Amino acid sequence: MRVGIFDHMDCAHSVKALDGCDVVHGHTYKVEVVVEGELKDGMVMDFKALREATKRAMAKYDHKDLTTVFEVPSAENIAQALFADIKKELPGVYSVKLWEGYNKWAEATR
Amino acid sequence: MRVGIFDHMDCAHSVKALDGCDVVHGHTYKVEVVVEGELKDGMVMDFKALREATKRAMAKYDHKDLTTVFEVPSAENIAQALFADIKKELPGVYSVKLWEGYNKWAEATR
Amino acid sequence: MRVGIFDHMDCAHSVKALDGCDVVHGHTYKVEVVVEGELKDGMVMDFKALREATKRAMAKYDHKDLTTVFEVPSAENIAQALFADIKKELPGVYSVKLWEGYNKWAEATR
Repeated sequence: MRVGIFDHMDCAHSVKALDGCDVVHGHTYKVEVVVEGELKDGMVMDFKALREATKRAMAKYDHKDLTTVFEVPSAENIAQALFADIKKELPGVYSVKLWEGYNKWAEATR
Repeated sequence: MRVGIFDHMDCAHSVKALDGCDVVHGHTYKVEVVVEGELKDGMVMDFKALREATKRAMAKYDHKDLTTVFEVPSAENIAQALFADIKKELPGVYSVKLWEGYNKWAEATR
Repeated sequence: MRVGIFDHMDCAHSVKALDGCDVVHGHTYKVEVVVEGELKDGMVMDFKALREATKRAMAKYDHKDLTTVFEVPSAENIAQALFADIKKELPGVYSVKLWEGYNKWAEATR
């Protein structure tokens, strides 16, 4: 069984290689974290704990300029970095999906 | 190919073991049911029939106090119970995903 | 890793075999296209290129009467046709998911 939560973070970013995306702008990123596991006392894990772990991982990026954190702050690279960070805390993490704004996303899966 | 529909149900619930969730409150649950199958006359199945089967399964919980139905009315347990009920009627059901409110969910998959 | 975008198209359609769906009406279809691939320069592919490929594929159906294009303009058949068309341009396409209106969908997967 899988459980998931999503939350948001607000960052500045630009991608030099992409025409129209090379000027610093920003996004409200939606971040969905999914955990797979067996049920224990009727739960895979407490949603609140999953949200807190997600917020801890997002803290590195939320309200930051991502060009100072990533060489290429693409949705793919951010999703992958969040996945790696969350995995340290939650080995059962199944995927991290990151929407760059509203209608485009990247998903890193176990 | 997969087809899915989603609908909603409104229930009261509480989870004793979870701090902050142990007082009776309620959620508008979003319920997505997915069926996998081959195309027949261009369809896996009629969306209307899928919605009706979903509504029949939700009737056990909609506008009820889930603490009288489940020992632990977690999203995981409700999703699993809906999956089991729908499977009796639709053996091709692939998954049931249940959002507890807006931004957290559990998914039972075949 | 997977990346996806979604967009919309507005079409007229009817399905003769389905009661209540046999009169010409219309939908705003939401179309999500997912591509799977390895990262190159931090990206699976440029979102903009993915959106343009999606728009090119949708142009065959957008603002058209789908009964003149499909024998059975079901969500399943439209999803499958979009998948086949996009695959010609993007061999790495993983899935096309088509929402017929708001709360029902069909998904063609590789």
